[in-house]
This record gives sequence, structure tokens and C-alpha cells, in this order.
Amino acid sequence: MSLQLDEKGKLRHFLSIDGLSRELLIDILDTAESFATVPEQSVKKVPLLRGKTIVNLFFEASTRTRTTFELAAKRLSADVLNINIGASSTVKGETLLDTLRNLQAMHADMFVVRHQESGSAHFIARHVKPYVSIINAGDGRHAHPTQAMLDMFTIRRHKKEFGKLCVAIIGDILHSRVARSQINALNMLGTGEVRVITPKTLLPNGHHSLGVQVHHDLKTGLKGTDVIIMLRLQNERMSGAMLPSEAEYFRLYGLTEEKLCGAKSDAIVMHPGPINRGVEMDSQVADGPRSVILQQVSHGIAIRMAVMSMAMHQGTGEAKDWGGGPLSRGKRGSEA
Amino acid sequence: MSLQLDEKGKLRHFLSIDGLSRELLIDILDTAESFATVPEQSVKKVPLLRGKTIVNLFFEASTRTRTTFELAAKRLSADVLNINIGASSTVKGETLLDTLRNLQAMHADMFVVRHQESGSAHFIARHVKPYVSIINAGDGRHAHPTQAMLDMFTIRRHKKEFGKLCVAIIGDILHSRVARSQINALNMLGTGEVRVITPKTLLPNGHHSLGVQVHHDLKTGLKGTDVIIMLRLQNERMSGAMLPSEAEYFRLYGLTEEKLCGAKSDAIVMHPGPINRGVEMDSQVADGPRSVILQQVSHGIAIRMAVMSMAMHQGTGEAKDWGGGPLSRGKRGSEA
Amino acid sequence: MSLQLDEKGKLRHFLSIDGLSRELLIDILDTAESFATVPEQSVKKVPLLRGKTIVNLFFEASTRTRTTFELAAKRLSADVLNINIGASSTVKGETLLDTLRNLQAMHADMFVVRHQESGSAHFIARHVKPYVSIINAGDGRHAHPTQAMLDMFTIRRHKKEFGKLCVAIIGDILHSRVARSQINALNMLGTGEVRVITPKTLLPNGHHSLGVQVHHDLKTGLKGTDVIIMLRLQNERMSGAMLPSEAEYFRLYGLTEEKLCGAKSDAIVMHPGPINRGVEMDSQVADGPRSVILQQVSHGIAIRMAVMSMAMHQGTGEAKDWGGGPLSRGKRGSEA
Repeated sequence: MSLQLDEKGKLRHFLSIDGLSRELLIDILDTAESFATVPEQSVKKVPLLRGKTIVNLFFEASTRTRTTFELAAKRLSADVLNINIGASSTVKGETLLDTLRNLQAMHADMFVVRHQESGSAHFIARHVKPYVSIINAGDGRHAHPTQAMLDMFTIRRHKKEFGKLCVAIIGDILHSRVARSQINALNMLGTGEVRVITPKTLLPNGHHSLGVQVHHDLKTGLKGTDVIIMLRLQNERMSGAMLPSEAEYFRLYGLTEEKLCGAKSDAIVMHPGPINRGVEMDSQVADGPRSVILQQVSHGIAIRMAVMSMAMHQGTGEAKDWGGGPLSRGKRGSEA
Repeated sequence: MSLQLDEKGKLRHFLSIDGLSRELLIDILDTAESFATVPEQSVKKVPLLRGKTIVNLFFEASTRTRTTFELAAKRLSADVLNINIGASSTVKGETLLDTLRNLQAMHADMFVVRHQESGSAHFIARHVKPYVSIINAGDGRHAHPTQAMLDMFTIRRHKKEFGKLCVAIIGDILHSRVARSQINALNMLGTGEVRVITPKTLLPNGHHSLGVQVHHDLKTGLKGTDVIIMLRLQNERMSGAMLPSEAEYFRLYGLTEEKLCGAKSDAIVMHPGPINRGVEMDSQVADGPRSVILQQVSHGIAIRMAVMSMAMHQGTGEAKDWGGGPLSRGKRGSEA
Repeated sequence: MSLQLDEKGKLRHFLSIDGLSRELLIDILDTAESFATVPEQSVKKVPLLRGKTIVNLFFEASTRTRTTFELAAKRLSADVLNINIGASSTVKGETLLDTLRNLQAMHADMFVVRHQESGSAHFIARHVKPYVSIINAGDGRHAHPTQAMLDMFTIRRHKKEFGKLCVAIIGDILHSRVARSQINALNMLGTGEVRVITPKTLLPNGHHSLGVQVHHDLKTGLKGTDVIIMLRLQNERMSGAMLPSEAEYFRLYGLTEEKLCGAKSDAIVMHPGPINRGVEMDSQVADGPRSVILQQVSHGIAIRMAVMSMAMHQGTGEAKDWGGGPLSRGKRGSEA
């Protein structure tokens, strides 16, 4: 039985795309759709998680990701605690589980966890009480599922159906938790063709089981693509030997208007941010008409509101207590 | 006249157990009882301190303690400002009193103060305006009264009456502000017998006036106890000469299931956290059936909500404006 | 056309006093007047910016200034995000504009910007979307307009009319963004006489165009003044060569009761804080009957609430939706 679901098959934790059904992914996208208009309201909040306590538990600093979760939680009217674990109890020698048990005893309802070790979000989810939900905000090289879902949301908004799409993911597949989650989500949603375009040194060993077409040449790899997803070059995760230089990387795999010619004329360009301009792509592309990078950021709030509210209301029916507003336009009723 | 009380004898500041009456301590426990069910509500908040500004003024870093006060304040619907003074105005050479006067001028209603110097909370309380309340969140070796009160709350929940209890406090009495506050509270509440079990080097000079039985041997000290309170070994407060080694300390004063045999069969084990597993106790005890350590953490929120709301509403009758909810089940009416 | 105003001439950004009309400055003062009583309410909040997202974007650490904006925003019921940019995305090499565009994409409504470079707030304001407002919380040596306006508010509360006043600004004019903003505001409001009293080495080159009388001697400079504004000696902005020593500075330009004799008998003494006691003034003056320094701090919250709410409601008429409360006593109706 999946750790992520409760006994009725509803979302309890959101740890990875792996282990979730196609229906559940679509439900997340639909729920996010219902939240996407909240920022256009004059009071851009919904009272869905009022009085709930959400703890941002960041073992790895990331102001950017933390900010998106904090905003999503506040727009759901939750109380948010930011805990930077590096500067906190571990200093006094407390173990991870003791820290968790303590926060649980304070009746925290949800932990948004970012950790440098793969599998840490699952580890934590296996040890929390039944009333606590875990959201994975990135664990080592393993997964970053809210990033993947905001990407799916962005693709669906532009392309409607996944079945006929050709999607290319470009860059450091080996070290990227984002890529892993994206490939899972694209396949689960029935994407026509998923390609990765990457140097041989940045392709993981088990790539045959990933369900992707592998390209090493950018030009041939881009041919006929509808969606182009650039990965961030994670300097901090690479040993120098794997790449010659940033300039060389840009020459081979950096996106330019010229190289984009091979893609379909209405192809969209995505990037999880922050962009290394002149490395993964030049500014002409980043700020150009095909770029949907800033839309991804907006959609990230809606997706995080969706998984947070779905995980928190699992099995309780509380969502229905909230009369009117965005959710009632969503598909919460068909969650089961 | 006590600095902690207003002219009607109600709580204004909460600085130390010393100086408070038995009735007031019981009133705090009763008020906390009324807040203990708030986390079970679907909206775990009460509007009692809505629109009030509470400033966490931490001169000594403590994410753990700060978190409990922040949560308690948010569940009372107050606005919370976290100010880490190390990184703040003192950098520019401002004196403590200037910092205080400035925050007062911004109409802060309450300061939760943590400071490395004994007496600092009292010092601050002597200098604030009549409309400001001070809560001591730990000052040097002096006091940590909310910790002591959450311990009393935990004991009362398990043992009902203090009069017939035998309570042992084990560890570094000399450097512990927690022990000092606990001993005061236990005696004020009429505890049958209070023991301390400690190495000779960690016993304060004036222990004869503390109102405790002193033991140096763990086995004899534990005999017949109803409540066992372990102290944290504060490495940061000790010079190396006072203790041989952590292993030696554990051999002599560390709690194990075997050593627990001498205590009553229904004895409870407490610890203020974070636990040094294998130093103050082994994991079998920490996670065992007698441990109430995580309950202490939960009760800490209720106690902090109690003293915050009591100190803030002193003399104003505002508490009564709030119709229904936990407080109305408390004993606020009999405060005077 | 001014960057700070919308097409109807209403406040959109608040970047500098320069470029604003006398009417608008008076409107800010009147609006702040309407907020000045909010802290006296039992619930010291107004729902004016409920559901709005305000981001404190501090590129230069300043707990003090950040705190005043955070409090003002919370008392307007906004959601506040504190982002310390030093520790954030710029670490990953993201440019300032990319950071901004990302926060914009998250539907932030307002940025409160503090930056060490002159002109940065204007730069940012030129690049944000139409729905975003920028408040300058201090940019390099250039401007600190909310500080200047809280000073004007304090002067008006004590002296009513600006026309007959003699105001002296004392200290390091050269490096002070506060002085620059104060001089602009005082002149715009028609102050009778504005003097600066400063060592020759701390007078800017273009002082002839400032519209001030220059004095180098404190005694003659103070003669007949109604308002005395001390500047903070910004050690961090000065090369050692410009000043002999702190003691020498105090001897020549430090304010004492004795030196105050030359000023009018009802003159008030102001300082932006934090005070260097014994450098800019001695404690007898700082804590004496003429000092209005702590009132400045209180007024700072009201002024910040005023500019935040005015900038956010520009052109939308939303302010009028809010029935009753402090604002209705203000002059919002005559804003245009």
C-alpha cells in the first residue's frame, strides 16, 4: 500500500509522483485550476486551512522554494512556522526524529520538508502520526514533485492534451530531482513522447527504465518538440570532471533562438528557475515569446495550494464545510 | 510589592515562580487546562489576543523555545514579531533600554524575553510602560518559569494532588534555571517531598535553603518516587572539570529501565528536552511507557497560552468580552 | 511624468520626496493622522490590506526599519514575507530583475525595498508590473522618504504650521539619505527657514542648490530654532579622514542642555535613531523634556501605514469599500 495515500485512496502525503495514479495527478491539476484565480481576487485568500499549523522544515536553505510554500499556506489562511534546521535544534544534538516528535506534540498539521538526502521525506512520512501530512519540497537527487506538477499544470494550460505531445527535457538528468519527477509525471499522464537531451556524463545509469528517448545532440533532439524543459545546471552538485566549462556547455546544450528553429513553431520553453543566463539559455529565449517561465512561478502557488489542501482534508470531509469560493469550482467532489 | 502583579494582585508579568501565590499558580494551571483542547478544534485558534503585538526578543538563540511561544501567540490570534537581538540593533551600538523603548513606542503589548544573564527579565520589567507585559523565557541560571509550569501541569494531569507526591529532580542543579523554577513551584504547590539527585560538584552552595532532600546516589534517590524529572546536561554551561565524561555521567546518573525499578510502579519520567540520548537517559526510557516527555511539549503550548492571555488581560476585563470557547470553561472569573 | 504617480496623479510608488506635490505630502500626513489612533484600539488592526502580499525585500540588513514596515503591514492586515536577499537567490547567481519578476509572478502586491545603492528603488519601480507598488525604505545615500515624512508628521503635531518655523538639521549631511529627504520635505511644505549645521568635510558639494542656510558653528546655528533634527553619525559610511574622533565630534556638534540654550524655549529635539549617546547628544537631552524621539518611532508606524495603503489603493477606489474605522476620519476623500 502506498505511503502517500490513506485507506480510501486519497492523498495524505505528497512525496513523489511515483506511486500516484493518473486520476490523482489530474485531480491535483484540477484543484490547482480552481486556485489559479485566487490571486485575482481583491482579498487573495481562502479560509480553507484557517487555524492549521504548517511548518516549513528546511534542512537545506532555499528562500525561493520556502517562499512559494509560505505564500501558498498563507493564501489558504494557515499559520506558518519557518524552521531552519541548520541553525536550530540539531545544534544541540537532537536527532531528526526527536525534532519531528516535538513539533508533532505542538500539534503541527503539516511539514513541508526540504532535505539534502534522497528519501528523507519518505523516512519522515513513515514516522509521523496519523494526523500529520508531509509535503516533499525536494529531497537530495530523488524528487521534487510540486515542481513537476506545476510544470504539468503549465503544459496542460498551453497544450490541453498530453497524448500527442513531444516533450524534451534538456540538461543534467543525472543529478536532477526535478527531471526524475517530471519524467514520472509526463509518463503517468500519457505524454506521446518524452525525450531527454543530455551529455553522456550526465545521463543516469538506469536510463533504459525511465521510459524516455535519449538524445545527445541538441539539434536533433529538439526536432518536432512541443514542449522544451530546460534543467538548471546544478554547479553545487557536480564534480568538475563531468563538464568542461560553462561556455562549452552553452555551446552544446544552451538554448538560443537559432537552435529553437527545429522545434514546433508553437513550442513553449520552460525552466524551474533560477536561470543561469548564458549557460542554460540566452536572455533572448528566457525573455522571449515562447518562454512560459514566469507562468510556471505563478502556477507553483496554485499547485502548492492544491496539494496542501488536498493532503490536509483527506478523509475528513472538511473541505465541503467551506461554502463557495474557488474550491467549489474544482473537482474535489470526485476525488475518490 | 511584587513586580509580577498589578495593584489588584493579578498577573502582569511572568518572570519567576518566586513571588507568586499558590492560588495564582493554580489559576495558571486551570487556565492552561481550558486551552489544552484548542488543538483538537478544527480551527485551532481563539480570538483572545487578536490585534495584539507580541515580540519574541531573543538575546540567546533558541528555536525550540521561540517556536512554542510563537505558536502559542498565533493560536491566541496575536501578531508575532521575531527579533533576534544578536543580529539586530545592538550591532549599531544601541543599548538594551533604547531597543525596548523603541519597540514600546511601536505599541508592542508583550515581550517574550530570553537572555543569557540572570535577572534580565526582571530588569526589563522594571523599565517598561504600564501597558507592556514581560514573559521570561529563560534568563541565565535564574529562572525558566513557563517550563516549570508546564511540568506542574503534566504532573497534575497524571497524579492529581501534589500533597502526597515524592518528586525527584536529577542532574545539574547548579547551572539549571529549570531546576530552580521547578523546585519553587513544587514547594509552592505543597509537594510531599522534593528530592534532588546530583553529583556534589553540581549542587549549588545554598542548597540548604532550597527545601529539598539531597541525594548523590541515583538508586537510593529514586526509591519510592512518583515523578522523576531529568535535567538536560548543559554542556555549554559547564567547565570540563566538573564532570569526568558523558559516559561516566550516564553510568552514575543516566536513567535506564533497570535503575527505574526503585521508583513506584506508576512513576512518570520527564525531561525538558532536547534529550541527550545515552547521557541523561537511554532510548528505552525516553520512548518507554513511563515517559511523558512529548506530553510536556504539548502542555507547553497550553501553559504559554495561559500566561500570555492572563498577563495581557490583567485588570481590563477584556477576557470576558470574548464569548464562549475554552476560556469560559476556565477559572478566569475567580482570578482575584 | 513622475514615476511615483499614476495617470490620475495619485500615489503609486513612494520613492522619494522629490517629485511629489505639497498637496500629496499633506495628504500623507492627514492619512497618517487617521491611523495614529489605531494602536489605542483594543484590536489594533484595520482590514484595509487584508489578503494583500507585501514583501520586505532587504538587500541591506536593518531589523529596526524592517520591523516598522512589518508592523505597519500587519496592522493593515496584509500578509508579510521577509526576504533577506543576501542569504537568498543572489547566492545562486540570479539577477535582481529575475528575483523581482519571480516575486511578481507570485502576485506580490508591494515591495518594501532597502538597498545599499542610490537609485535602486527607482530602478526597481521602473521595471515592475502595473499592479505592483514600491516603497523605498532607504537606498544608498539617496533617500529615506518614510523617515522624512514621520519627521514632518512629528513637527506638525508639535508646531502646527511650517511657514514660520526655523528648523536645523545637524550632523553628517554628506552621507545622509535621511537629511536629503528631510530637506526636500521641509522645503516642499514651506518651512520658514531650513538650516544645516555640519563640519565642512561633511557638507555635500552641491549644497547651494539645497535651499538651506549652512552653519558650521553649533551655537550660532541653533539660535532661534524651533526644531532641531540630529542625524546619526554613520560610522560605516565614513572614511576615517573626515572626522577627528567621536569625542571631538561631540565637543563640536554633540547636543547638550547647555548648547540647547540658544534654541527657542519650546524647541523640540529629534533623532532618527538609534542614538549614539555621548556622540550626537548626551543622555540628558535624549531623555529630556524637549526630546520627541520616541514619538517619532510611534509616528513611523502611522506614516508607513499611510503610504502603504495609499500606494496600494491608487486608482481602485477600494479604500472606500472599507466601512468605518480610522480611515473614514482621514482625508482620503480629497486625495485627487
